[in-house]
Formats: sequence, C-alpha cells, structure tokens
Amino acid sequence: MTINFERLKANINELAQIGKQEDGGIYRMAFTPKEYEARAWLENQLCQGNIDCHWDGALNIIGRIADDKNEKQPAILIGSHIDTVPNAGALDGALGVLVGLECLTRIKEEKLTTKFPLELLAFSDEEGRFGGMFGSRAVSGQLNPGILEESIDLDGQALVDVLKDLGHDPYQALDASRPNETVKCYLELHIEQGPVLDVEDLSVGIVSDITGLFKWQVQLTGAANHAGTTPMDLRKDAFMGLADFAHEIPRIIDENGSEASRLTVGNATLYPGSANTVPGKVEFSIDARDVNPEVLKELKTACRKTLSAIARRRGLQFDFTEVSVIEPVACDDHIQKSIEKQAKKLNQRYKIMPSGAAHDAQMMAKIAPIGMIFVPSKNGISHSPHEWTDWHHIEQGANLMLNTLIELSQND
Amino acid sequence: MTINFERLKANINELAQIGKQEDGGIYRMAFTPKEYEARAWLENQLCQGNIDCHWDGALNIIGRIADDKNEKQPAILIGSHIDTVPNAGALDGALGVLVGLECLTRIKEEKLTTKFPLELLAFSDEEGRFGGMFGSRAVSGQLNPGILEESIDLDGQALVDVLKDLGHDPYQALDASRPNETVKCYLELHIEQGPVLDVEDLSVGIVSDITGLFKWQVQLTGAANHAGTTPMDLRKDAFMGLADFAHEIPRIIDENGSEASRLTVGNATLYPGSANTVPGKVEFSIDARDVNPEVLKELKTACRKTLSAIARRRGLQFDFTEVSVIEPVACDDHIQKSIEKQAKKLNQRYKIMPSGAAHDAQMMAKIAPIGMIFVPSKNGISHSPHEWTDWHHIEQGANLMLNTLIELSQND
Repeated sequence: MTINFERLKANINELAQIGKQEDGGIYRMAFTPKEYEARAWLENQLCQGNIDCHWDGALNIIGRIADDKNEKQPAILIGSHIDTVPNAGALDGALGVLVGLECLTRIKEEKLTTKFPLELLAFSDEEGRFGGMFGSRAVSGQLNPGILEESIDLDGQALVDVLKDLGHDPYQALDASRPNETVKCYLELHIEQGPVLDVEDLSVGIVSDITGLFKWQVQLTGAANHAGTTPMDLRKDAFMGLADFAHEIPRIIDENGSEASRLTVGNATLYPGSANTVPGKVEFSIDARDVNPEVLKELKTACRKTLSAIARRRGLQFDFTEVSVIEPVACDDHIQKSIEKQAKKLNQRYKIMPSGAAHDAQMMAKIAPIGMIFVPSKNGISHSPHEWTDWHHIEQGANLMLNTLIELSQND
Repeated sequence: MTINFERLKANINELAQIGKQEDGGIYRMAFTPKEYEARAWLENQLCQGNIDCHWDGALNIIGRIADDKNEKQPAILIGSHIDTVPNAGALDGALGVLVGLECLTRIKEEKLTTKFPLELLAFSDEEGRFGGMFGSRAVSGQLNPGILEESIDLDGQALVDVLKDLGHDPYQALDASRPNETVKCYLELHIEQGPVLDVEDLSVGIVSDITGLFKWQVQLTGAANHAGTTPMDLRKDAFMGLADFAHEIPRIIDENGSEASRLTVGNATLYPGSANTVPGKVEFSIDARDVNPEVLKELKTACRKTLSAIARRRGLQFDFTEVSVIEPVACDDHIQKSIEKQAKKLNQRYKIMPSGAAHDAQMMAKIAPIGMIFVPSKNGISHSPHEWTDWHHIEQGANLMLNTLIELSQND
C-alpha cells in the first residue's frame, strides 16, 4: 500500500496557507484564531476521511479508527502538532500530523483490518506558548494543577484564563492523561531540523534516541579595569575566562562525550561592555546535550571542573544556575527494527541517528514505546520560512510511516 | 624648596566639593555650570597667589608668571584638566592642575627668578563631552573649522552652539594654537589610572611613552543553527571564532608585542543570542595598545592574520572597521632624566614606565618636548569615587614636580 502523494502534497500546501504572514512566514500560536482555523481544517479532513474525531481535555485533536474487534485493545498512536513558532515554515509539526492523517485515511480507504485501534493526535501547544509540549505532557500524565495554574505566556496571559475564554474547563486538561494500557505505542514523523540527512544525501532517518540536555546560565566575575593602563598579567578579565572555556569545549566532548554530544554557548553578555574596559563580568549560556544520561552527567562534571579551574587560574568568581534539565529518551528497539525493515523493503537510503531536538515523542515515551522517522531538512534549517524538504523525501518518509504502521498494526 | 602640602591638600578637598553628587561621585562636565564653578574657584586661587590669569580662545584657563627679563622666552607649561567624567573621583585631571597651581604659587611666594616664563594650563574638555582633549588639541594646533563644526555631544548639542551660548566666538578656539617657539616644554602630573605603582609599592612613575592604539570593531559571520540538531563538525559558530581569537591573544603579544602591549576584547554581541541557537554572527571590539608605532603595526598585522585564518578554518566571514587610531608619543629624554635626577635627590621610590591611558600631554607633544609624572592609583582604580592616592604619595609627586620645574626653569 502507498500513500496518496498528491493528496498529502495538497494538504501540506493548504495548511501552510493558514497563518501565512505577509513576510512569507507562518504563525499559528497555540489557542489563537489562526491555530483554531487550522484545527477546524484538520477536523474537516478527518471528517472527509470518515475518521471519528474528538478533542480531549487538553484540547488535543484525536482522530480514531477502531472496529468492534479491536476496540478494547491498546491503540497505536501517531502524532505531532499543528501550532508553530513565529515566522515558521510549512513542515515543523504539520508534516507529522498530515502524514498521520494520510496514513489513517489510506487504511480507512482500503478497509484494512488492524489488531489495534489507530489514532492520530494533533497535540496542543508543542512550540511553547505556555512552556511547550502541553498536549503530550497532558496525555502522558505529566501535568498537574500546579503546572496548569503557573503557566503564563509572554504577554502575561494565564493558560487557565485562555482556556476558560475558549469555553473550556482548564482542569479537564488533567483528564487527558492516558493509562499506559490504552497505548500500544507512539509514532512520529518529523523534519530532522539538522543538516545530517541533507549533507549525507539520505531520504529518511530512523531515530535511535532523543537527546536530553542541561542548560546553565553561568556568571564569571573578575574586575573591570582600564584597557590601556592594566597590564595583561594584572587583569581579572571575565571574558577571557569564557574564551578559555569555549576553547576547552572540543576537549570536554572528546574526553567525556559521544558523537551525539553537543555543547553550545549561544548567548554572552560582557559587563560593562565598553571597548576600552577590561570586562569585569560575563554572563553566558551553556546548552549541553547527549542521548546517554551517564554521558550527560560526565559532561556536566567536566563543565563544572573546567570552569572552576579557569576561575581559580584567572582569579574569577564562578557561579551558575541550572536553568533546565531534560532526561534523554531511547526509542523502542522493536519499533526501530520494524521501521528499518520497511525502509529496506522500500529500498530507501536511511540512517539510524539521534534526535538533537525535543519532540512530543519525548513526553509520550513516559507511557509507551516510541518510534520516530526523520526526513531531511534542507541545509539543516527549521523555524524559518526557508525550512524545506524535497517532495520525494516527504513521499518516502510518508510511505515508510504507512508501511511501518501497517506492520505494527498486524502483529502483536 | 618644597610645596605647601597642607594648602595642596585643602585645595584638593575644596575642588572635590564642586560637582559632588548625592551618590558620592563628582561630575563636572565641560562647559556646564558645575565646571564653571570650578573655573571660578581656580581663577580665585590664581588671583590669591598673585598669578596673572586669562582664558584663551578654546576656554583654557592660563595662569602665567613672567618677568621683564624672561617675558620673550618660550614658556614652561604645566597642565592638566578640571572637567570630569560622570561619577568621577577627586584626582583625575584635578590633581595635575592643583599641583601645577601649588608649584607656581610656591615659586611666586619665594620670588624665584626663572629663565623662562611659567604657565599653568587647565585644559577644556579633556574627558570628551565633545570628543576629548579639546583644549590641548587647540593649543597644539590640531583643531580646524571642520572638527569644530562637527563636534556634537551625546545630547545632540553642537559645540559651536554651546560656546556661543556661553558668550564666546567658537572660531576663536582656532586662535588658541601656540607657535612651537613660544613653548619650551610641557609637564603634567597625573594619577596612573593603572595598578602598577600600587602593586609595586612605589611613590612615583616617570613616564617614558604614552601608548598609541588602534580600535577595531570586528564582525564574524557564520550560520545560526539549532544547538541540538547541528553536529559540532557541521557548525559555522561565529562565537567560537571569537573564542579562538581570544585564545591567541597571549601568543599574538608574545610574538609581536612588548611588555607595554595591551590587547582587549571589551565588548561582544552574539546573534541571535538565544541559548539553544549556534551563534551565526558575533560583533566585538579589539583595543590594542603599545608605545612603539612599529610594534602597533605588527600587532595589527597579527590580529588580521589570526582572524583571517580562524575565519577560513571555521567557514566564517571576517570583516572589520578601524574605529580609531592614535599614534604613540615618546616623552622627552632630557626631561625624563631631569625628573629622575630629582627623584633620586628626594630619595623617592620611582619607576620608569609607559602610560597606557591618553593624556593632554599626548596632544602637546606635537609642539613641544613633554614630561609626565605618575602617582599611584590605589588598586588601579580611576573614573570612580573609589579613585584615590595616598596623601604621602601626592606630596612626593608634587615635590618631584616642583623640583623638576625649578631645575628646568634654571637651565637652558
């Protein structure tokens, strides 16, 4: 069985018109009129495909195919999200939902019987108007009244107020939590958002793990001094401490990391920040990722030791706050093997690879085995109107998902 | 002969009250009411010392001692400035003027005859309301109508308008230019504004050179990418290019510089500056100083080569603009030797050292031999209410200046 590629293509193009801005980017922030327009459009597509559709308490849209025989069985879930970041491209999130829609529509069209119900999930607020992955957090039971009540967007609007204004009881989001035994597994197709498949000219990626991370905000404090009158050896130059750390990043990864390790200094602010003053203070971010919790721990120890040693050597004070920690998650071996088997059957050029970005799948791993398929991101670009994937790669990814879904739905 | 230390001390304390802010700092911006209050106070002190006083066209205050015999001879000038930066301390500039005042007052009191007229100059706007060193630039003939007309302060006020509002013809600033033959030499005492004398526990510094500098604003451009999905070896991380450069600074100085070399990255801005994005662009300053024009040239070449190589290696684009260049200036050998001779006679612990900061003397070197004496800055601090010099070091510096002035005024 193959997907109806022309229909998938048309759906991608149609959904991309919703929230289209004058500058070419797309913006469908969660729970806004534009995102609601996309929700209505998706419901209509499910309806046309004769797929039952409802919203759960976290406003996730769920399309479900079941029959009298399999109704009591755990469901195979396939999902992603249709909300976007500002100035987004057409594919992030949307592609996974539309491929899921296409898979279910084809299976319904072909009247294929499955051992398990199949469900499409379009998760609410993956992109983080209220912290991110709200919908998948709710389904995987990782929400609580505290999180619900504390969630505020950048404009200061509370999540509970937004949900009330939309006519929902916000506390019903807690009802969206699914018992493990109702979920057989969770599948997601997503653009890679990195350059690897594009550089290696591959059609699909089979995700082995989703990286965990720790984010630090670091402060090095020395002494601000006159850049002309302060000899090099009498300085306590906080910026030079940061430069020393940056220089050690390759060593830190070589000694403690893996091929999947990433260590990034994405922001830095120098104080006082004038050209003729030795920086007396620098604040900067560290974003460290790996797929292995032990490796992440090693990286963390190495960052701390490196910065402590630099601070001692340069007479600086070293402080940091851990801004966030996300544990890495492994994709299910059995599902990975199923995907690989289908990729070989379909004669696709694939690669088994980690995901460096976070996805709804990361939340869903809490309650079920997960599997993910990547398609290439041209030049590694995402979260941009330049985000794109060749149509033939999209077609191959969608067919790989369909065939995997069928295989998983036919066997125990 | 020695200075009247109690009078000097009283004068320092009195002048420090003018422009005193509630937070403890002093602010006497050039051509403001507070600075005019300081001008009036200084004129009054000159008057009490029976020293003739006038303003030149650049609003420099000039006190002069001459007699029938030496009137036609070139004058020995001693000067500095009484304007301040915001939140200033009591000594920067002011100390040099008050020591000069004390020297001339003592010589007048003692009715010492000199071969040359002696002049005290309190230069206008050294600190840079309108670009800096306005008064000494005018006296040394480095002003022109273009500079005059283009000078605007941070509030957008034009220098010519400010001078007009004060009742002056701004173009008379051009009349302040002194023919070389009217100036025998220029002397200045100043706080070091660096930590060297304080760290080495010395009383005075004899300045050998005033450093020149070049300032660059550098831009490295790579590609902004997702910090999680972009493998380390597929990045074009602009910040890492800056870190590489910072790491090379000690090598650049070791290979091309001198003990007087300073190389500082004082500001840096990362774009887009978010923790989970590889920086696609970084802009930063380079402030490089040395006392030797050849060394400065070598440092410039080394910075360019280093940054070009880093850019090639990391796939970045390297651009820079030269924001400013100041040529180094050497202090006069004969004057240095005179100062040293007096320091030895007075049994003072001294050091011959370069000045890393710019001074009015740098301008005056254009028309006359210059000499400078430093007194220690506690902890190297200046431009701050914490700026301070022990009273006994001030006394020693002032006596060294007086004795040097007397020696220079007695011999050809």
